[in-house]
Amino acid sequence: MSKITTRFTLAELAQHIGAELVGNPQHEISSLATLQAATQNDLSFIANPAYKKHLSSTQAGAVICAPDLAEAIAGNKLIVANPYLCYAQLTALFNSPVSSVGVHESAVVGKNCVLGKDVWIQPNAVIGDNVNLGDGVVIGAGAVVGTNSSIGARTRLYANVTVYHDISIGEDCIFHSGCVIGADGFGFAPASTGWMKIHQLGSVVIGNNVEIGANTTIDRGALDNTFIDDGVIIDNLVQIGHNVRLGKNTAIAAHTAIAGSTTIGDNCTIAGAVAIAGHVTLADRVHITGMSMVSNSISEAGSYSSGVPLGPTKEWRKNAARFRQLDSLATRIIKLARKAPEDE
Amino acid sequence: MSKITTRFTLAELAQHIGAELVGNPQHEISSLATLQAATQNDLSFIANPAYKKHLSSTQAGAVICAPDLAEAIAGNKLIVANPYLCYAQLTALFNSPVSSVGVHESAVVGKNCVLGKDVWIQPNAVIGDNVNLGDGVVIGAGAVVGTNSSIGARTRLYANVTVYHDISIGEDCIFHSGCVIGADGFGFAPASTGWMKIHQLGSVVIGNNVEIGANTTIDRGALDNTFIDDGVIIDNLVQIGHNVRLGKNTAIAAHTAIAGSTTIGDNCTIAGAVAIAGHVTLADRVHITGMSMVSNSISEAGSYSSGVPLGPTKEWRKNAARFRQLDSLATRIIKLARKAPEDE
Amino acid sequence: MSKITTRFTLAELAQHIGAELVGNPQHEISSLATLQAATQNDLSFIANPAYKKHLSSTQAGAVICAPDLAEAIAGNKLIVANPYLCYAQLTALFNSPVSSVGVHESAVVGKNCVLGKDVWIQPNAVIGDNVNLGDGVVIGAGAVVGTNSSIGARTRLYANVTVYHDISIGEDCIFHSGCVIGADGFGFAPASTGWMKIHQLGSVVIGNNVEIGANTTIDRGALDNTFIDDGVIIDNLVQIGHNVRLGKNTAIAAHTAIAGSTTIGDNCTIAGAVAIAGHVTLADRVHITGMSMVSNSISEAGSYSSGVPLGPTKEWRKNAARFRQLDSLATRIIKLARKAPEDE
Repeated sequence: MSKITTRFTLAELAQHIGAELVGNPQHEISSLATLQAATQNDLSFIANPAYKKHLSSTQAGAVICAPDLAEAIAGNKLIVANPYLCYAQLTALFNSPVSSVGVHESAVVGKNCVLGKDVWIQPNAVIGDNVNLGDGVVIGAGAVVGTNSSIGARTRLYANVTVYHDISIGEDCIFHSGCVIGADGFGFAPASTGWMKIHQLGSVVIGNNVEIGANTTIDRGALDNTFIDDGVIIDNLVQIGHNVRLGKNTAIAAHTAIAGSTTIGDNCTIAGAVAIAGHVTLADRVHITGMSMVSNSISEAGSYSSGVPLGPTKEWRKNAARFRQLDSLATRIIKLARKAPEDE
Repeated sequence: MSKITTRFTLAELAQHIGAELVGNPQHEISSLATLQAATQNDLSFIANPAYKKHLSSTQAGAVICAPDLAEAIAGNKLIVANPYLCYAQLTALFNSPVSSVGVHESAVVGKNCVLGKDVWIQPNAVIGDNVNLGDGVVIGAGAVVGTNSSIGARTRLYANVTVYHDISIGEDCIFHSGCVIGADGFGFAPASTGWMKIHQLGSVVIGNNVEIGANTTIDRGALDNTFIDDGVIIDNLVQIGHNVRLGKNTAIAAHTAIAGSTTIGDNCTIAGAVAIAGHVTLADRVHITGMSMVSNSISEAGSYSSGVPLGPTKEWRKNAARFRQLDSLATRIIKLARKAPEDE
Repeated sequence: MSKITTRFTLAELAQHIGAELVGNPQHEISSLATLQAATQNDLSFIANPAYKKHLSSTQAGAVICAPDLAEAIAGNKLIVANPYLCYAQLTALFNSPVSSVGVHESAVVGKNCVLGKDVWIQPNAVIGDNVNLGDGVVIGAGAVVGTNSSIGARTRLYANVTVYHDISIGEDCIFHSGCVIGADGFGFAPASTGWMKIHQLGSVVIGNNVEIGANTTIDRGALDNTFIDDGVIIDNLVQIGHNVRLGKNTAIAAHTAIAGSTTIGDNCTIAGAVAIAGHVTLADRVHITGMSMVSNSISEAGSYSSGVPLGPTKEWRKNAARFRQLDSLATRIIKLARKAPEDE
C-alpha cells in the first residue's frame, strides 16, 4: 500500500497559510496528525483548548497555533489567527486522491451526451441519454446518471451514487456513495381502492459547492422542484422530502429527516437525528440540537431543542410513567397553589 | 434537455377525470402546475383551503376544484367531487418516463431465467440464475436481482436496487434506487466467545402495487418470511426488520424503523422517524404521529403520539432537567394534596 | 425455484450440537421451522417460555429444548443446555448459499491487485488498483472496492456494497448490500465565505468477524482512523461518524446514529433508533434502550434510557404542552412543600 507522499518545508507551509513561522524553516513535513499521534514528520494543530494538555508531550514536527498559545509550544510553530481554518486549508494540500481522465471501456454513455474536458467516468458507470457533464466531472464506479440530467464542472460522484432523470447539479459538488438524488417524493392520494400514486413531475435543482453524504436521499418535487442552494452540506443517511428548499450554507447532520414542502433558511445548522415536519418554515440562522422534533415553523434565529435526558432505565421508567399524568398533576398543583397563595 | 410534451384540450381532460367543464373546451394544456407557478399552458388544482388566497391571482389555464369553490375561480374550471384524487390521476397522464424494451448488452443475466414480454434490463444490471421476470418488468441500471427470485409483471426496479436471493415480489410495484430487499435479519445468539450468527433462512414476500422508497431496507425472515401485503407504500430510509408483517395499504413515512417480528394491521399510517419495537402488534387503522416511540402493542384504531415539544434551548434545558425529578415531584404533589383535600 | 435440500437424521443432528436425543434417531430432517409452522420434516426449538403454548400442537419432526421443558414435549426431542445457541449453530448447517469462485468477465480488477485462493468476484464488481483480497473473499455484483484497500480471508461483500480507498477489513466479515465504508467524515471549518472542507485523511480499520447491515455508513477518520473491533455486529441504516471507536462484540441495532469521535466500550448493546452525541465515551457493558438520546459520557455499566411513552394523541398533546411548564411547575411544588412541611 505504498502512497506517493509529498513533502513540504515549514517555510513553504507557513507561506501557504500566511503563518508566522517560529522555528526551523527547512524542517520537512509529509502529513498532518493529531497532537497525540504526530511524529517529527507531521504537522499538528491546536484549535480546541481541551487539547492544551497534549502540547507538552507532542512529538509533532510543528504545531499550528493561535498567538495566545504560542508560548506553550517548545518546538516549531506556525502562528495564525484561526488554526482550525488553516488546518482545513492544509488538508487539501495533503489529500492525494487518485485522479485520472477518460471514459472506462466498461462504462455506458447514452446518446447525445455532452462531456466536458477532462471528464473521468469510472468502470461500470452508466450515463443516460442527453446528459451534460461539465469539465473535470468525475463519475464513480457503478454510479448512474439518468436521462437529461446535467452536472456542473468539477463535481464528483463517488461509486454507486444514483442521480435520476432531469436533475440539475451545480459545480464543485461532492456526492458520496449510495446517495440517491431525484427519487419520487412520497405523494399518494387516498382512493376507495387504496393509495393512488401522484407521479412526481418536478425535479431536483442543486447549487454549487454542495456536499451530500453517503446514502442520503433527496426526492424530486411533485410539481415544482426540490431546491438545495449553494454551499449546503448534508451528512449521511439524511432524508430530504419533495419540494423542500434549503438555504445557502445550511448544514444538516446525519440521520435527520425533513418532510415535504418545508423551507429552511440560510446558515442554519440542523444536528443529527432531527425530524422536521412538512410544510413548515425555518428562518435564517436557526440551530436545532440533536434528536429534536420540529413540528412548527420557527420565525426567529436562535437555538432550539426537544427531547428528554438519558437516565438509568429503572429511574427513567418511573419518570416516564409520570409523563402520562403530567396534565393532571399540573392541574392539581394549580389548585393547591390557589389555596395556599404564594407570597413572593 | 428537450422533452416531448403532449397537449390535451380541456374537453379531453374533463372527460378523462369525469369533470364538469366550465370554460373553453378547446383551451390546450401541456402540463400540471401549482396555482402560484401555473401559466396559461398549465392545469392547476385546489384541494387544500389554505391555498384559496392564490385563486384570484393564478395564471393557470384552468383549475380543478370542488363545487363549493367553483364560484371563486374566474377562468376555466374543471369541477369534480375530489380534486386531489383527480390531480393524482392526471399526474399519470403528464408523466412521460423514458421507456424501452430489451436486455442491454452490458447487463448480465444468469442461467435458467424466464423473461416475460417487453422486459427492459438496463445497462450493467445483474440477474442471478433461475430468476423469473414478468411481462413489462424494468430492471434499472446497476440493479442486482439474486438467484431464484421472482418479480411480477410491470414492476419497476430503479437503478442500483438490490434484491437478494429467493425473494418474491408482486406486480405493479415500484422500487426506488438503493433499496435493499432481503438482506439478513439482525439475528445473533450470545455465546461465550461473542455473537453466533443465526443464518436467516426465511425470505421476503411482497404483494402487488407496493412502492418502496430509496435506500429503504427490508430484511429477510429468520425462519418464516417477512411479509408486505398489497398496496403498502413505504418512503425512503425505512427499516423493516425480519419477520415483520405489514397489512394492506399501510403507509410508512421516511426514516421509520420497525423492529423484528412486529405485525402492523391494514390501513395504518406511520409518520416519519417513528421507532416501533419488536414483537408487538398494531391493529388496523392505527395512526402514529411523527417521531413517536412505540414500545407496546396497540389494540384499538386511533391516533397515537409521543415525544416532547421543541423550545428555545435555554428553556428546554431547565424543563428537561426537571424530567429527571418527575417521579419525586409527583409523589410530593400527591402528599400535599392529601393534606389539603381538593374540594371540587 | 427448486433448491438442493440436504437431509440429516436426528442422530446426526444430536451429535452435531451435542444433544441428548429422546426419540427416533433415524427420523430425517430437511429444514428448521418455528413450532407453529413446522412439519414432520422440520426441526424446531423452544428458547422463549412464551412459546410453550405451541408445544402441544406443534407438528415438528423434533424439538430442541432445555431439560426443564423436555417433559412437555411428546414427540422427538433434542435436549441441550442452551437451545437458542444450538438453533443458531444449526442455521449454518441448513443455510445453502450459492457459492462459486473466479472473476466474472464483466468485473473490472485494477492493477497490482493480490487475489487469494478461491476468490469470487461477481458480475460488474469493480476493484481498484493495489487491492488485496484474502482467500475465499466474495465480492458481490456491482460492489466497488477502492484503491489500496485490503479485505481479509472469507469476508463477503454482498451486491452493491461500496468500500472507499485505503480501507482495511478483517477476516470472516459480512457486509450487506448498500453499506458504504470510508466515505468522508462530516468535517468542515466555518469560513467567512461558507464552509471550508476538511479533507478526511484518515481511514477505517475493521477487525475480524464483523457484520455490517444494509445501507449502513461508516465514515473514514479526519486524521486518525475510525475503528471497529472484532466481533462487532451492526444492523441496517446505522451511521458511524468519523473517528468513532467501537469495542469488541458491541451490537448496534438499526437506525442508530453515532456522531464523530465517540468511543464505545466492549460488549455494549445499543438498541435501534438511538442517537449518541460526538466526543463522548461509553464504558464496557453499557446497554441503551431504543430511541434514547445519549448526550454525555457513561462511565458505569448498566442499562440507560430516555424518551417518553406513547399515548392517544389527544391525551399526549395535553401532557406534552405541560412539559414546557415543567420547570415552573416544579418551582411551585417546592414552594408549596416548604409551606406545608412533609411530616414523614
